Amino acid sequence: MDLATVIGLVAGVVLILWAIMSKAPISAFIDGGSVAIVLGGSVSAALISFPLNRLMGIGKVVKNCFFSKPLDPVDLIEDMVKYAEVARRDGILALENLTSEIKDPFVISGIQMAVDGTDPELIEGILMAELEAVEDRHAEGKALFDNIGKYAPAFGMVGTLIGLVIMLGNMGDDPGAIGGAMAVALLTTLYGSLIANLIALPLADKLGLRSREEMMSKMIVIKGVMAIQSGDNPRIVEQKLTTFLPHSLRQKGEDARAEAA
Amino acid sequence: MDLATVIGLVAGVVLILWAIMSKAPISAFIDGGSVAIVLGGSVSAALISFPLNRLMGIGKVVKNCFFSKPLDPVDLIEDMVKYAEVARRDGILALENLTSEIKDPFVISGIQMAVDGTDPELIEGILMAELEAVEDRHAEGKALFDNIGKYAPAFGMVGTLIGLVIMLGNMGDDPGAIGGAMAVALLTTLYGSLIANLIALPLADKLGLRSREEMMSKMIVIKGVMAIQSGDNPRIVEQKLTTFLPHSLRQKGEDARAEAA
Amino acid sequence: MDLATVIGLVAGVVLILWAIMSKAPISAFIDGGSVAIVLGGSVSAALISFPLNRLMGIGKVVKNCFFSKPLDPVDLIEDMVKYAEVARRDGILALENLTSEIKDPFVISGIQMAVDGTDPELIEGILMAELEAVEDRHAEGKALFDNIGKYAPAFGMVGTLIGLVIMLGNMGDDPGAIGGAMAVALLTTLYGSLIANLIALPLADKLGLRSREEMMSKMIVIKGVMAIQSGDNPRIVEQKLTTFLPHSLRQKGEDARAEAA
Amino acid sequence: MDLATVIGLVAGVVLILWAIMSKAPISAFIDGGSVAIVLGGSVSAALISFPLNRLMGIGKVVKNCFFSKPLDPVDLIEDMVKYAEVARRDGILALENLTSEIKDPFVISGIQMAVDGTDPELIEGILMAELEAVEDRHAEGKALFDNIGKYAPAFGMVGTLIGLVIMLGNMGDDPGAIGGAMAVALLTTLYGSLIANLIALPLADKLGLRSREEMMSKMIVIKGVMAIQSGDNPRIVEQKLTTFLPHSLRQKGEDARAEAA
Amino acid sequence: MDLATVIGLVAGVVLILWAIMSKAPISAFIDGGSVAIVLGGSVSAALISFPLNRLMGIGKVVKNCFFSKPLDPVDLIEDMVKYAEVARRDGILALENLTSEIKDPFVISGIQMAVDGTDPELIEGILMAELEAVEDRHAEGKALFDNIGKYAPAFGMVGTLIGLVIMLGNMGDDPGAIGGAMAVALLTTLYGSLIANLIALPLADKLGLRSREEMMSKMIVIKGVMAIQSGDNPRIVEQKLTTFLPHSLRQKGEDARAEAA
Repeated sequence: MDLATVIGLVAGVVLILWAIMSKAPISAFIDGGSVAIVLGGSVSAALISFPLNRLMGIGKVVKNCFFSKPLDPVDLIEDMVKYAEVARRDGILALENLTSEIKDPFVISGIQMAVDGTDPELIEGILMAELEAVEDRHAEGKALFDNIGKYAPAFGMVGTLIGLVIMLGNMGDDPGAIGGAMAVALLTTLYGSLIANLIALPLADKLGLRSREEMMSKMIVIKGVMAIQSGDNPRIVEQKLTTFLPHSLRQKGEDARAEAA
Repeated sequence: MDLATVIGLVAGVVLILWAIMSKAPISAFIDGGSVAIVLGGSVSAALISFPLNRLMGIGKVVKNCFFSKPLDPVDLIEDMVKYAEVARRDGILALENLTSEIKDPFVISGIQMAVDGTDPELIEGILMAELEAVEDRHAEGKALFDNIGKYAPAFGMVGTLIGLVIMLGNMGDDPGAIGGAMAVALLTTLYGSLIANLIALPLADKLGLRSREEMMSKMIVIKGVMAIQSGDNPRIVEQKLTTFLPHSLRQKGEDARAEAA
Repeated sequence: MDLATVIGLVAGVVLILWAIMSKAPISAFIDGGSVAIVLGGSVSAALISFPLNRLMGIGKVVKNCFFSKPLDPVDLIEDMVKYAEVARRDGILALENLTSEIKDPFVISGIQMAVDGTDPELIEGILMAELEAVEDRHAEGKALFDNIGKYAPAFGMVGTLIGLVIMLGNMGDDPGAIGGAMAVALLTTLYGSLIANLIALPLADKLGLRSREEMMSKMIVIKGVMAIQSGDNPRIVEQKLTTFLPHSLRQKGEDARAEAA
Repeated sequence: MDLATVIGLVAGVVLILWAIMSKAPISAFIDGGSVAIVLGGSVSAALISFPLNRLMGIGKVVKNCFFSKPLDPVDLIEDMVKYAEVARRDGILALENLTSEIKDPFVISGIQMAVDGTDPELIEGILMAELEAVEDRHAEGKALFDNIGKYAPAFGMVGTLIGLVIMLGNMGDDPGAIGGAMAVALLTTLYGSLIANLIALPLADKLGLRSREEMMSKMIVIKGVMAIQSGDNPRIVEQKLTTFLPHSLRQKGEDARAEAA
Repeated sequence: MDLATVIGLVAGVVLILWAIMSKAPISAFIDGGSVAIVLGGSVSAALISFPLNRLMGIGKVVKNCFFSKPLDPVDLIEDMVKYAEVARRDGILALENLTSEIKDPFVISGIQMAVDGTDPELIEGILMAELEAVEDRHAEGKALFDNIGKYAPAFGMVGTLIGLVIMLGNMGDDPGAIGGAMAVALLTTLYGSLIANLIALPLADKLGLRSREEMMSKMIVIKGVMAIQSGDNPRIVEQKLTTFLPHSLRQKGEDARAEAA
């Protein structure tokens, strides 16, 4: 899993627990019914918002997105330049022998189509459509977390309103119990806010960034395959692809090449 | 009806009822006047927002959207590939005999125009316009639910303000009644929040997703008809159309074909 | 006036009045100063936001938009098909005789330019510019209502803050008067919320929908004139234009034609 | 200055003062420290948000925008039609003599380039770039007011929180002073809300509208110069340019021409 | 560092401190636990939202953005005009000797490619891609500050809720301590609001403006290199590039040239 995600989640939870426990017993902040309203309400809203089969599949998308290592764009460019050299030197058909060494299915399918002599426009069309399909799946995963980040605070407020109505209705019976009842009523708002701001919304942000990283990698592959097929000079291929890299990575790529030289 | 919608709605309602009834009689949460303000206000706002004839028609759009099963994109692609094979083998006119077997009117009209030798650009134009018209109708349905999701909380607040003004005006008369009056005043905010977050907004989300699914199916039909008319190789047709599928469905399609083989 | 708008406005006002009067005298909810702050503040903000001559003109735009009956798109298509038939049969110049029967100036100017043999691109350019100008005027009307819907709640809050500051400053003098003073302070928030959510925002929504309907009619005219001038077959003209219709209207059009046949 | 802006600002201020003074001495609403927090905080945020040299220049942009009279689009079209007539009758070089009569530098530079026989595409490019540059400057002015409209309420809340913390900390000392302290604490929220909703946000709205009006005038000049250079018939020039006018102005233009005839 | 940023930050902090200290000891506004919740929570959310290596790199991007002086667009245009003159007079290869005098690597790479006779379309493509990559990096820096501006108030509210729950739970024990406990509870909301509105959001705004300034400079370079390579007249080059300048700078450029003449 992405290291920063783990650190952030653990740090956030520890921090909140510490903030609570330094001043009050943690038990004052745990209330099963409140958890049920906020979590249950958010899950209900998600069930209504999304088709069942997608909710099932989203778990996998999210897991992939967090655990699978995206292709390193620097390595990817080096590979594409290498293929361009092979194609220039030995002809594009020589790439066929290399496809067995390639791991990423997206790269394989691109190179394979180039080797097959598929029409360049068709190759670009098919790869772009594949890229857009992956982007859509990521967007669905992000949408789920955004959805929870939207409904958890709402059901937090619903829970607090329910608690307040009960408390106000009983106010005549035992004025001394008001403080405790109101404390419990506020718990759902606290839960909703924590679920949204410590978990759902930051995860949605990261999913979005991860998706953009993977899109960048896929764009490098697409532009690389197009350049290789059109017989571009390997140096031009490198120049074209390097423009996709953020500066920091670009430096890294140059250092790596300097070392290799 | 979509299963997840039913589960979500039932689960949400049961959950809220349980949360209330475990601590207080349900009667404390029912107030006819409060229901009238929130529901009546939202319906009034919807009547002002939308033309009458559309409000009437929206019920049908929504029903269709929830109950009608959208075309399975995997089956659809298989069908389009089959038509491409027939067109390649027996000529495009041979598709005329197949139109009687097709159920979806959108597919029929596309194939029929291809058989009639209509100009490809015109076919694409007409089918795209049809697609956009369907998209607009879905958007209208979604807009109604978004509208209710916007006005229900607003009239919830209006109701609470009315209740507070009444309560504060009577404060001198009977201080003991304040708690109860305020509890009732808060009910409209609770109703508004539940209508918006448990019903209207999640349903709007699902309508949006459903619409996108149907748009995807229609796009597959459009691209398929265009490919068939231009005499594409059935394998190319399949490759082009498969890119519209999410990965999970793509796998499913491949499994189905493997079994068939 | 649009029927749903009247029903919605009357129903909303009656409902709120009933909700108030069933529990308290209506006089407790009327306060001249509060009305002045909310209405006056919103009008002041609108005066600053918009140029004076536009504010003057907007009344007319809004009235037109609510009272003028937009062209029925089904009738419009029938007319355009009829013109296409005439043009095909008797030549495009024969349309000149028909322009005296046409009522809508937009249709007249389109047909007239086609008869004059104006360059198709120029016709489309002029009609599209006209369409965009109408769209802009509608958008200005909508912007005014959106503006009021934004500032009315803001000045409602300003009024409540003023009331609270006065009340808190006098708290020492007569603690018994707090309830009443706070009730009055809350009235501005109530007014602002009602003005926004019962009047301004729903009317803005409807103006937007009305505008889109009129744009649809104008698009039908533009596409129809272009098709007529290029000598399209009347059946093709009908097919092209029908795609602009929502399904319900499409059915209606087919029924009408079936009856006519 | 734009009349509606003055009326709106004066009316809003008078109204709020009257609302206050009819019920309490105005002194209860004036607190130097509160003004300092809200104004100072907003100015600080603006200083951080914008580069210093732009903040300096924005005053001028805003003044220009409010005080300079934009070219009347009706007069502008009449002028362009007149130039088109001259160009048709006496050749485009004859326009050179007219440039001394023209006041607006934008019109002069367009006509001059046409006279110089500059390539039409280059003329359009240069004038469009000028238009976009003016639009950017207006957008900067609008951004400043939007910025103040965003930060003033935020620092209003900051001030109220500071006031509440002080008040709550002293609560034990003198319970009778709570009312007054809280009244003062609320003043910053009131100030922030008034600065945003009575001044900053409406002025931002008007700046946006003013900018669009000037863009319309500039578009008329650009399209007019292009039409003149391509030797369009003056009637066609008028027809093309009139489509930029809102209907009300269009009528006015026709009346003016009718009178002139 | 940008002067306005320093002035704004110092002025804002001094102002808030003065507002506090004029009425209460500053110690009443300092609470380590509250700082920990707001800062810690925001940092945790940022860690979850962004990949670790980007968080590391963002510091550098931000520093560059604040401290590095962007190329003065007026000087830049003068330089590009000078290169255009050289290229016209001595041929484009003569620019090679000038590259050693140029400091900005972006200008060097553009001129170098022009000298090398690289295809104009490729030059534009490579420089535009570089520009977009820089824009993306700036957007990442801005996204971090926007992120903090979003989560700081959220964790401020979380802290206040925790404080309120603790306070309400202890209400029975010592009613006299309520004021102080509530004051402390409100501190986190105050901190969150200050972090967002005095630091994070204004800095995000300025980063956005800085980025746009740098984009303007880079666009001037790109358009200038394209014009030089196509052999444009130096006066045309100047005219084309000047349109990118805001008016104030344009005046300055003309003054500078007038002095030089």
